Order: sequence, then C-alpha cells, then structure tokens
Amino acid sequence: MATEQKPDVQQPAQQIRASVLHGAQDLRIESRSIFPPGPAELQVSVRSTGLCGSDLHYYRHYRNGDIIVQEPMSLGHESAGVVVSIGSEVKNFAVGDKVALEVGQPCEQCARCKEGRYNICKEMKFRSSAKAFPHAQGTLQDRINHPAAWCHKLPENVSLDLGALLEPLGVGIQASKRAQLPAGSTVLVFGAGAVGLLVAAMARISGAGTVVIADIDIGRVSFAVENHFAHRGFTVPLKRGSTIEENLEIAKETAAEIGQVTKLSGGLIGEVDAVFECTGVPSCVQASIYATRPGGKILLIGMGTPIQTLPISAAALREVDIMGVFRYANTYPTGVEVVSKKGPEYPDFSKLVTHRYKGLESAEEAFAMAGKTKDDDGKLVIKVVIETGEEDKANL
Amino acid sequence: MATEQKPDVQQPAQQIRASVLHGAQDLRIESRSIFPPGPAELQVSVRSTGLCGSDLHYYRHYRNGDIIVQEPMSLGHESAGVVVSIGSEVKNFAVGDKVALEVGQPCEQCARCKEGRYNICKEMKFRSSAKAFPHAQGTLQDRINHPAAWCHKLPENVSLDLGALLEPLGVGIQASKRAQLPAGSTVLVFGAGAVGLLVAAMARISGAGTVVIADIDIGRVSFAVENHFAHRGFTVPLKRGSTIEENLEIAKETAAEIGQVTKLSGGLIGEVDAVFECTGVPSCVQASIYATRPGGKILLIGMGTPIQTLPISAAALREVDIMGVFRYANTYPTGVEVVSKKGPEYPDFSKLVTHRYKGLESAEEAFAMAGKTKDDDGKLVIKVVIETGEEDKANL
Amino acid sequence: MATEQKPDVQQPAQQIRASVLHGAQDLRIESRSIFPPGPAELQVSVRSTGLCGSDLHYYRHYRNGDIIVQEPMSLGHESAGVVVSIGSEVKNFAVGDKVALEVGQPCEQCARCKEGRYNICKEMKFRSSAKAFPHAQGTLQDRINHPAAWCHKLPENVSLDLGALLEPLGVGIQASKRAQLPAGSTVLVFGAGAVGLLVAAMARISGAGTVVIADIDIGRVSFAVENHFAHRGFTVPLKRGSTIEENLEIAKETAAEIGQVTKLSGGLIGEVDAVFECTGVPSCVQASIYATRPGGKILLIGMGTPIQTLPISAAALREVDIMGVFRYANTYPTGVEVVSKKGPEYPDFSKLVTHRYKGLESAEEAFAMAGKTKDDDGKLVIKVVIETGEEDKANL
Amino acid sequence: MATEQKPDVQQPAQQIRASVLHGAQDLRIESRSIFPPGPAELQVSVRSTGLCGSDLHYYRHYRNGDIIVQEPMSLGHESAGVVVSIGSEVKNFAVGDKVALEVGQPCEQCARCKEGRYNICKEMKFRSSAKAFPHAQGTLQDRINHPAAWCHKLPENVSLDLGALLEPLGVGIQASKRAQLPAGSTVLVFGAGAVGLLVAAMARISGAGTVVIADIDIGRVSFAVENHFAHRGFTVPLKRGSTIEENLEIAKETAAEIGQVTKLSGGLIGEVDAVFECTGVPSCVQASIYATRPGGKILLIGMGTPIQTLPISAAALREVDIMGVFRYANTYPTGVEVVSKKGPEYPDFSKLVTHRYKGLESAEEAFAMAGKTKDDDGKLVIKVVIETGEEDKANL
Repeated sequence: MATEQKPDVQQPAQQIRASVLHGAQDLRIESRSIFPPGPAELQVSVRSTGLCGSDLHYYRHYRNGDIIVQEPMSLGHESAGVVVSIGSEVKNFAVGDKVALEVGQPCEQCARCKEGRYNICKEMKFRSSAKAFPHAQGTLQDRINHPAAWCHKLPENVSLDLGALLEPLGVGIQASKRAQLPAGSTVLVFGAGAVGLLVAAMARISGAGTVVIADIDIGRVSFAVENHFAHRGFTVPLKRGSTIEENLEIAKETAAEIGQVTKLSGGLIGEVDAVFECTGVPSCVQASIYATRPGGKILLIGMGTPIQTLPISAAALREVDIMGVFRYANTYPTGVEVVSKKGPEYPDFSKLVTHRYKGLESAEEAFAMAGKTKDDDGKLVIKVVIETGEEDKANL
Repeated sequence: MATEQKPDVQQPAQQIRASVLHGAQDLRIESRSIFPPGPAELQVSVRSTGLCGSDLHYYRHYRNGDIIVQEPMSLGHESAGVVVSIGSEVKNFAVGDKVALEVGQPCEQCARCKEGRYNICKEMKFRSSAKAFPHAQGTLQDRINHPAAWCHKLPENVSLDLGALLEPLGVGIQASKRAQLPAGSTVLVFGAGAVGLLVAAMARISGAGTVVIADIDIGRVSFAVENHFAHRGFTVPLKRGSTIEENLEIAKETAAEIGQVTKLSGGLIGEVDAVFECTGVPSCVQASIYATRPGGKILLIGMGTPIQTLPISAAALREVDIMGVFRYANTYPTGVEVVSKKGPEYPDFSKLVTHRYKGLESAEEAFAMAGKTKDDDGKLVIKVVIETGEEDKANL
Repeated sequence: MATEQKPDVQQPAQQIRASVLHGAQDLRIESRSIFPPGPAELQVSVRSTGLCGSDLHYYRHYRNGDIIVQEPMSLGHESAGVVVSIGSEVKNFAVGDKVALEVGQPCEQCARCKEGRYNICKEMKFRSSAKAFPHAQGTLQDRINHPAAWCHKLPENVSLDLGALLEPLGVGIQASKRAQLPAGSTVLVFGAGAVGLLVAAMARISGAGTVVIADIDIGRVSFAVENHFAHRGFTVPLKRGSTIEENLEIAKETAAEIGQVTKLSGGLIGEVDAVFECTGVPSCVQASIYATRPGGKILLIGMGTPIQTLPISAAALREVDIMGVFRYANTYPTGVEVVSKKGPEYPDFSKLVTHRYKGLESAEEAFAMAGKTKDDDGKLVIKVVIETGEEDKANL
Repeated sequence: MATEQKPDVQQPAQQIRASVLHGAQDLRIESRSIFPPGPAELQVSVRSTGLCGSDLHYYRHYRNGDIIVQEPMSLGHESAGVVVSIGSEVKNFAVGDKVALEVGQPCEQCARCKEGRYNICKEMKFRSSAKAFPHAQGTLQDRINHPAAWCHKLPENVSLDLGALLEPLGVGIQASKRAQLPAGSTVLVFGAGAVGLLVAAMARISGAGTVVIADIDIGRVSFAVENHFAHRGFTVPLKRGSTIEENLEIAKETAAEIGQVTKLSGGLIGEVDAVFECTGVPSCVQASIYATRPGGKILLIGMGTPIQTLPISAAALREVDIMGVFRYANTYPTGVEVVSKKGPEYPDFSKLVTHRYKGLESAEEAFAMAGKTKDDDGKLVIKVVIETGEEDKANL
C-alpha cells in the first residue's frame, strides 16, 4: 500500500494471506508480503470486517459508479482487530490491544484537513476504494500495517464486531453532528438499512424526541422500532410515476402520509425538523423537501441517483437547507463512547450483525449474502461480517 | 399587573384570592379583582406552583440580592394550571386545557427579542421578580390572566406538577442548547439541587456520554445517580481557604479529584468537555476552569457570589469559554416533548417533587420547607410544590 | 389592512390617495380612508418606494407564480417615509423622523418567530404580497399606518431612497449572515441585478477577500466592478442545451470558466468557498454546484425555476451545502449601519437608483421602465424608485 | 530541533549562525550545524523576524511567566524567508519562493488537532517557546528546516516583513473567527499595541461597522485611527484603586466613558457587541464586562494578570460570553489573502513595522528598542523587525 511507511528496523518480510479482487466476482486468496510496521504504525491482525454496499459494488462489477478498479484490490473497510506489533515511535498501544481501524488516510496538509474536515480531503486514500491510485488495499487480509494515529483502542467490554461497526456508525455520528439538532426534535429517516438504522440511533441518542423511520420493507421498519433504533416507523410503497409531475405528486403524498404517521398536524406536510435521507432515491429526496418544516434541514446520506429532479424552490423559499454527509471526521472517539454504553437508552448495536462468516475463504459466500435483503430462512440481512485471523489468536 | 390587557367586553371584575408578600416573612391572603381576559389572553386557574430559590429570597428578606421589593407582590413563577376563560382573539385553546405558564413577558420589540434571545431582553417583565416596576405579580393566586402566546398546552399524560417543572427544566434545556455538545461528551455538573438535576438530565438526554454530578451532600448525589439524572457522582467537601492562593489550590485538588472520579486520565485535570456550574460558589467555578479540557466550555448557571477571583488565564490560554445561562428562551416546546416521554432513557421527573402543600394558606409552611435541605424525616427536599385552585376544579 | 390596529382615540378618518392594482396592468388612483394610528403604530407619509421584481409580476399578470391576486391591492414594499402621527403607546419616535419600513408582519407567536427566524413564519403578512388574505396592502399610498416596532429610524445623513433600499439590502445581509464566511473567502455571485449587487456588496463588506460577479450582461458586470460592489466579474453566455446532459456539460464549462476568471487553480472547478445564486436559472444553479469547493456553501437567493434537475451527488459527496435565503430577519439595524457609512470600503449604494419617478400617477410609467434592462438612452436600469408624498412635505 | 526530520540523503551538515539566548540579556552569536531538509521539509533562509512580547520576556528574564528556559534557545517566531532547499517529498514549492513560517508544530494526532483546533494541542512545539522540552528553536538563525506543510507561500506583491506580520495577524484573524460577529457590529478593542491594532483591523475587515480602540497612550490611539485600523478611539487613564470595590467602580466609569465615545446611548454601559481585550489588565477586563451588551462577547486576547477578580455575575446574568483566544489555527491562508489586498478598505499593514535592524548581531539593540513605547525621537515603537540572511541573498 502506497501510504505504508518504511520499517525502521531492517527485518525480513512475513507472508500473509489476502482476499484479492481481480475482476467482477473474481476473488482470490493470495499470499502477500508484510514488513514490520513503520515507526508510526501498528501491525494489526484483522478480526472482524463488515461488508458495505461499496464493497458489494466492487465485488459485483469491479467498479463503483464512475470509479473503475485499476489493479487487484482487497476489499473491506469496516474493521477491527488486535495489535500484534508496534512501530518504534508509537505510544499508548500494547500488543494485544483491541483496535478499530479508521481506514481513510487524509493528506493532513490541505486546508480541509487542517480545519478538521478531513473526510472531504481531495487526496484521501481510503482502503478498499479505487478512487486513488495506487489503490489503498482493503482489510480482508490476515494482517495490515496502519498508522497508529488512525487506530482507536477499544475498551474491554466492546467486541471486535462492534469495533468494526464503528465505521458505519461514524456516518450516523457525522449526520447528527452536521444537523446540530436541539433536544426534542422530530426527525425522519428514509431507509432502514444498516446506515439508516445507525443514523436513526444516533439521532435518538443525540436527543431527538421523535425518530420516525421509513422503508419499503416492513421487516426492516419493525426491526428498527422493536430494537429501539427509532421510535416509530412506516413503510413507503415504492411508487414511481412516468413524469416528473407524477413523481412530485407521489412525493407530496408520501410527505402527507409522514405527517399522518408522525401525528404532527393532521397529515399536513412541512412539520419535520430534519430528514436524514439514507436511500438516494429521488422520490425520497423529493418527499424529504416536502416533509421538512421551514428552517429545517435535509441531510443527504444515501448515495443514489447522481442527477435528480427536485422541487428546489420548495426548499429555498422556506430556508430548508440541503446538506451533504460524506463519510465522517472525528467520529471514532464518540463511537467508542456510544457502543461501550449499556444504559437503557442505547440500542443493542450487536443485533445489526445478522450474519457472520469465518475466514477469508468465506468472502464469496459472505458477499452473496450481503446482496440479499433476507436469507433463505426469511431472516433480515442487515450487516454481514467476516471473521478472520483465527491462526493469530494463538499467538496472543 | 401592568402588562394585562384591557378586556374586550365590558364585564364586571370577579374576586379571587392571592397570597401577597408585604415584607420579610409577611405573607397575607388577600382578595383581588380579576377582569375577563384581554383579547389575546387566557384566564388560567393556577393549580401547581413550584417554589424557587428567588421566591425564597424574597420571602425571607423582601429582596433578592440587589433587587428590593417596592410594592406588595405575589410570589411564584413555576406554574401550570387549567384554562377557565379565553380572550376573543385567541385560537387553539379550549376551556379545560392544561397549560404550563411561561411567566416572563419580554418587550418583543428590541433586537434581542427579535433575534430570539428574549430571555436577555432588558424590558423583561417576569412574574414574582421585583426587577421591573410595577412588579409583575406571581402565580400564587387563584387565577391569572396571561397572554395565550406564553401559555403552553400540555398533553393529557403530563401532570400539572410536570407542567410547573417546565420552568426550571427550561434552564436545563437552555444550558444544553448553549453548550451545543456533540454526542458522547463528558460533562460535569456542580450542584445537585433541582436546577442541577434538571441540567444533568438534559445533558444526558441531549447525548452526553458521561454525566458526572458533584454536590456537598451525598444524599443529593445518590438521588441523582439512582434516578438516572446523572451517570455518576461524587461529593465535594466545601473546603475554603483564607487566601486566594489557598482557595485556588483547593480548586485544583477538586479538579484532580474529578479526574479520578471520571477515570478520564488517572486524576489529571483538564479532561472534561463541559462543566455546568449550578452553585455560584467561587471554589466550584475555579475548579470548573481547571477541570475543563482545552477548547471546552463552562456554563455559569448558578447565581452566586457576584464578584469572584478566578484563574482567568487558565481558561483563556486554553480557549475554555465561560458562558452565561440566564433563564431560557424557546425551551417550553422542547420541555413538553421531554416530560411527555416515557422511554427508558428519560428519568422520572416527577420524583423531583418531594413535598406538596395544598392551598394558598399553606404558603408559609411551604416556604419553611423549601428552605431546608432535608425534612424532619430525613427525606431530601428538592422541589416543594403548592397545589391551588381546588374550588375551581368543580367548574370544569 | 387586516393587521391595522384600532385607533385608541375616536377620530374621523382622513382621505388619502392610493395606487391600486385591479387587474393585469390595471393600476388606478383611488381615494382611501385612513384612521389615526393605533396605539402601537406610526402613521408614515411614504416618500420613496423601490419597485421589485415581484411587484412587476403582479402588475403584469395580476399574479406572481402560483399566487393569484384576490382583491384590489396596492403594490410597493421597498419603502421609506416620514412620521406624521404617533400612536399613544409608541416611544422613541417623533413627528418628522425619517423611517425605513420593514413591511412584513410575522405572527410573533409561532416557534419560528420566537426563535428569531420570523422571515419564514407561516402566518407572515407582507405588504404587496397576495399570499395572505386579505392582502396586506403595499406602500404606494400617500400614507400608511404601520407598527412602530417594524419602523426603523434613519440617521440624518441617510436619504429616503437609501432607506427604501434597505429592503433588498436585507436580502444581501441575510445571505451573508446565513453563509457565515470567514474573512478572506472567495465568493461567486450569479446575477448582477439589484439583489445580486447588494448581495455582492454585503459579502465584500463582511470580509470576503474576492467577490466575483457573473451576469449575462457585460454592462451590469462593469457596473458592479467599477462601483466596488464586486472585485471582479465576467459574463456568462446564456447557453442552453436541449438535454439534461448537454446542460450539465454547459454548467461544467461555466464552472471551469469561473476557475479561470478567479485564477484559483488554472481553470479547475471546485475552488469557490461560496456561491450566492441570485438568478434562479438552472444552469447557474448547476454551475454553482460544480464551482464550489468541498465543504463550501451555495446560497439560493434568486427565485427562479421551481423544479430543477441538479447534479445533487456532486454536492452531497463533497458536503457542499445548499441553503435557501428567503427575505430577511433582523437585518434592518445592520442595514442602517451599513448605508450610513461613508468609508472607502463602502460602495455608493445610491448609484443603484438609476431611475426616479414622481407621484403615484407615474406608477405605470415606472413599471414600464422597471421591466427593461436598459432605458432608451442605453443606460442600465437597476432600481426604479417612485417618489411620493409631495403634498405632505409642507406640513413637516 | 527535536521535530526536525532526518534528511533522506546522506549529506554533510553546513554551518550557519544563530542568535542564542543563554541567560537573562545574554544573547550570543553561535555557529550551528544544519543538515539538508528532511523529506517533508523546506530549508528556509530567514529574512524578516518581528519581535514579540514573549521574546522580550525571555530575553529580559530567561523566562516567560511560569515558563523557565532550560537550555540555550534562539528567539523569534514571527518570520518569513526564502526557500533555499527542498525535501524529496515536497511538492508545490520552488527554490526562491518567499514563504511565511507558521512556527507552531502540533502533534497532529490528538482530538484537538484532528478537529482543526491545533492551536490548543497539548503537545504543541512552538519555536522560541520554552514550554516544550527540548525547546523548539526560534527563527533568529540564518536558516532553518521547517515542515513544508507549515510554510505558506507568499505572492510576489507581499513583502517579507508582511510575511512575518502574518503571525500576529493570525491572532487578529483567530479573534474575529471566534467572535463570528455579523456585519455592522460595534466592537471595542482594549490595547493599541501591535496585536490590538491587528485585531482591530481584522474586526473592521470582517465587517464590524464601528471599531473603537482604547489605550493609555494617545499616540497609539491616533496611529490606529489615522491609519484606518479603527474607526474611532479614546484614551483610558490607567487608574487603579486600592480595593476591589474601587477598581470595579473605575471599571464602570470606564465603561460609561466608552458609552459616551461610541455615542451608543448617552453614556450608558452595556451597548457594545463585542470587546476584544488585548491588554490582560484586570481593570480593562472588568470594564469589558460592563461595556458589553446582553448576549455579547468578550474575547480575552491579551496575556496579563493570570488571576483576576471579576464581576462575573454581570456577565453571566446577561449571557455575555467570555472566550479565550490563544494564538491561531488555520489563519495563514486568510492572512495571505488579507495582506495582499490593496483596496481602500485595507489598512497599510507595513506601517506597523516602525523599526528595523539588520543582522543577527543587532538583536540586542533590537530588543532594547522593542522594550520601549517610543524611540528617542518620540516616534511610536510598534513592531521591531530584524532583517537577516543578507549573505544568502546572493545565492538566489
């Protein structure tokens, strides 16, 4: 990986195994060399990696939207592991520490980085993303060297699965931080996938008085409400008209339905303080605009249709602000704090891991499952995790 | 009351009873005339009034700090009641509605009012405060006329005691709004009286990951933790040196102790994200400065020693901001949302009402109790409420 | 007008003249009754009224977009005048005072009003807007009664024309307030009409280091730069493709051109800190998204095509926020401060008034001119003002 | 210097001369070794260094407040120079480039650094400060190696003196950024030394409508106003009482005087939107509290008496916030933008450099002058600059 540091001590490389994508649906287990960690790095035995939608896109198409893979690349960026070796200048870490990996490495020199918004650094190198070249390799490897500054120590009571979950949780934290909602706010979340659920949970934890979640799947909505990720929910039928006018009409109806569900003002639209849009589907973005009250906010979180037809005046004339949320910055410490809590106000985040696979060899099977909404037993598929590093465990 | 509107219809005044303060500890039950409500007013039968520290000061000394009472004045400003009559231009209220009274009436014309910070309006008329003249009479009366715009309808499931509690809760909401803390923050609250408890609860509800409360009384601390107003707590011995240097040393020790309790960094000071100072005691304000991390915030909520000797450079050189919290603005809707919730993350606010008295005649007895920290049975005194309006109940 | 107060003293009404719109291009001079001002009102002899785009729409079509006029209505809402009579409860005003009129009267009771964002109050009554019914009559009358709280006293050195200009200047102030740009920012303004020029000037006054203005008309651009409303400028050819793809390509080219003009990074897009979009034209909104740097802001100020096709992911994935600006709140005191300055950093705002007409009878002629971009002599038409109240002048 | 990188190529060290402080008033010219710049560093020939109050303290006392020098240390941290050599990984710089040096090197790993507030990083290594050990050596050397990420390229039209001035200007920018004042605000600056003048200028550039500056020296006040650093000014007699009560009375009188000067409300106190306190003198901090309007801000910029007796309730009860300003973060790009402007709204910053000395040997003489308020000719001493690097100039 391009950003890896040179080791300070001349030592021989070791061989590890990696799951490497060579083309659409062409995953291979390969042997790779790993040197001792550089002075400011940790060597981490990867233990838990959650699969994300972008990984799935790369796996299926060897591309993700406009971004085309240009060289073999390991997938995986929602990961936690155990420290196995420590660079010479690293402080505050010990072999055996559990760590969550913050896998994006910004340039740390541009104006955005220096002002603390490193998530939108133009030179970001993000593991398992093919945007930068050479690609920053993903975490589906036995071990990786990673800057200690981007490793976050986990308390004893936090599992490695929860450590991996800090990555998508970061998106939820970023969304709440950007929204800056006062306590008691009424919030609508479109989309009850893993990100939508985490966004909803963080809104609730951050003081939202009413979190309403909407999805096309009743099962996801029920999951959200039963497990305290949201207070209430409803299903949105995925209706689509053939003209823009029809679609906007559907969006208005959806917004009106939201009003009824939230019991805000007898079905009127325009009463929600903020919408967290996690689908990227135009009809949901349109409905978001109609649903939001004057002076409210829409957070665009879901990556969807890149060019959309929107009732933009309905937003601007009411000072409804449309704000983007791209990944996260400075969210891991908050995330560690949140997942280590056991109070009644915290949902059981571990329930999001609905399916687990063991070993790098199981990656294909895991990706197949990650592409489904329900498994063969009818159980919801929310987050699929690959457990790795078995052989290292003996050493610690 | 000066701000009362002229009634639109010519109707005879009715006689009501009021508890009126004529001098230090000189409360008298008197008969007063009340006209029908003005066009934009409601007439409210007052049912529950909590006693506040400022009321107690007026009762005991006929003054509150520099503010001297200049004419007989009813006390009471934490109140809720039931609508008994409605002005001609008022919408959205019905006779029988339960309402919480927001008793401060700002000028609505100055720059502060127009920008939404009406709590610091210089022309504020606040019931049971002698600052403005003629004094805005307090709520310890059978009925009052009050602008509908400053009455907040309560849902069915919210008791009138909770309605009255919205007033001090407003201070807690104001504090959290001003602090704008991100989720997961570590917060220290000095003082576990009614305001400190409500401040702590709102910090927790607003997403603070760790709320530590400190008080000189172990009973109050235990109350706070057992009833989920704070996560943890500890007692501060009220040590005071005879020189400034000794006092600052004590403050540093206190801050160090805080570090140990919060387990933040082995007893080091300077690790708390924000301190909510609810005592006004100089040693606590000093300790607040030492306890707060660089870039953190201190919210001054407690009204205490007006002139204090502070290690101000220890704040300024670390960009620790010292922010005032004076009453509240725009907090009632949030408060209604918060006290109407029954989820596990919400403390049972009704437990704050530790002592109740019936009828205006009980006011002296109630003030005597409000001046104690524990009653004769050793039970904590947190909030003393006077229940009134018995005779009106038959009419609704 | 519905919001006028009842006078406190029983006095006979006087007769004044008003310019009243009865249909498309059907303006009539009529006699109206005016009572003495209500207790909290001033009676103002209107002296200077600037014509706005919305007035022009009403004049031409008896409607403004979706809003249809339902009863005869006076136009005009950018106005200043002289106090001729004072309500019984009004303080701080004297007969003869020059005042600017803030013509929108919000409800002052809803959550938005109380939090200081009264510009998005749903119950707003705004003079010469047909949105509320009965319509709040515009200022093209000899005299009007207006709440003193919404009249802003002008210093001696500020002309009544400048007082009238405070209304559109308010939009510029609102835009800068919402943008909260740090000093030294690079700003792009689309549209060099009256609003665009005022927006540009306020951005510059608020500390923007580089204000670039763009318009389809080279004359307006030159006017902006020569009169210090903006630092630099360029013309955008109004190219429009027949497909969305063509249009987005044009938008990208425009953004690239902006890069060259601003010399930010050799023609690259994505370098502007904020765009103030004052045209409402889709290709400009699209170009705004491409031109803005990661983490930057787009302020939608121009009212244009209500439904637009936008490259929304290009905004969201870079956390480019799209914020509406609707009228203004709390901007008049700032505006008075700004137009009363004579320092070298302030543009000469009076130059914006390019055409003046005398008397209510000249309204038709004035509207005809306001509809042009240049007059018959080739002079730019920026702001057309109608001067009224001649006969009242003798009385003061 | 501890933070210097190892050079990537093995090359011999060169000898340079440095001005090194060995004790109180014991400055020696010494020879030091300098290696080629590390991979991410530039080697810079220092050309202009402004002397700061902290430098003067170290020079006079070999300490600065509580901070005691522990090893010989070069002074100087307001510096600009010319690039003479470039590390192997550095991009975007060329030999001969003029650069301003941002001399503080934060850890870049702590929460404060990652969120963009690196000025309050606990591990900050700041040149010519003895706080960290080993001390980060100051810039009074022929050449230094400095991370390219903390060098800021200067445009052709910006002199090296202005480049050096970006350091104290950074404090002014930080103050305005923290204050976030809307355009048109009324601002009071206490202290018309170099920092006070730069703070005032940045407030004005950032849109403050009225900047009033106060100092005990009429000459400094006149300088500020005549050179457009502030709009108005007045002298504060340095009166001090012998009791706290007397001092607070003096502070109130000062605040009242401010009211008269600002003509805000006939001598009343409490009308200023923000005070930028650049003296650290308790009577000025006290007067700041009285002078500020409800909801206003006090920025503590001057480093003065560390423990002060303040009328803290007069701040808290009016929500007057007391905010620290410590150095600066992310201000250099703004500073470059500001000093490169030539518009009428920008003061001529170069006038601040009142005295220049040539060569490291002149340091003692320069410090002697920096300690005076006026030179022997009666000319104000504002900023003393030492010009160095003569011999290097031939090489470029």
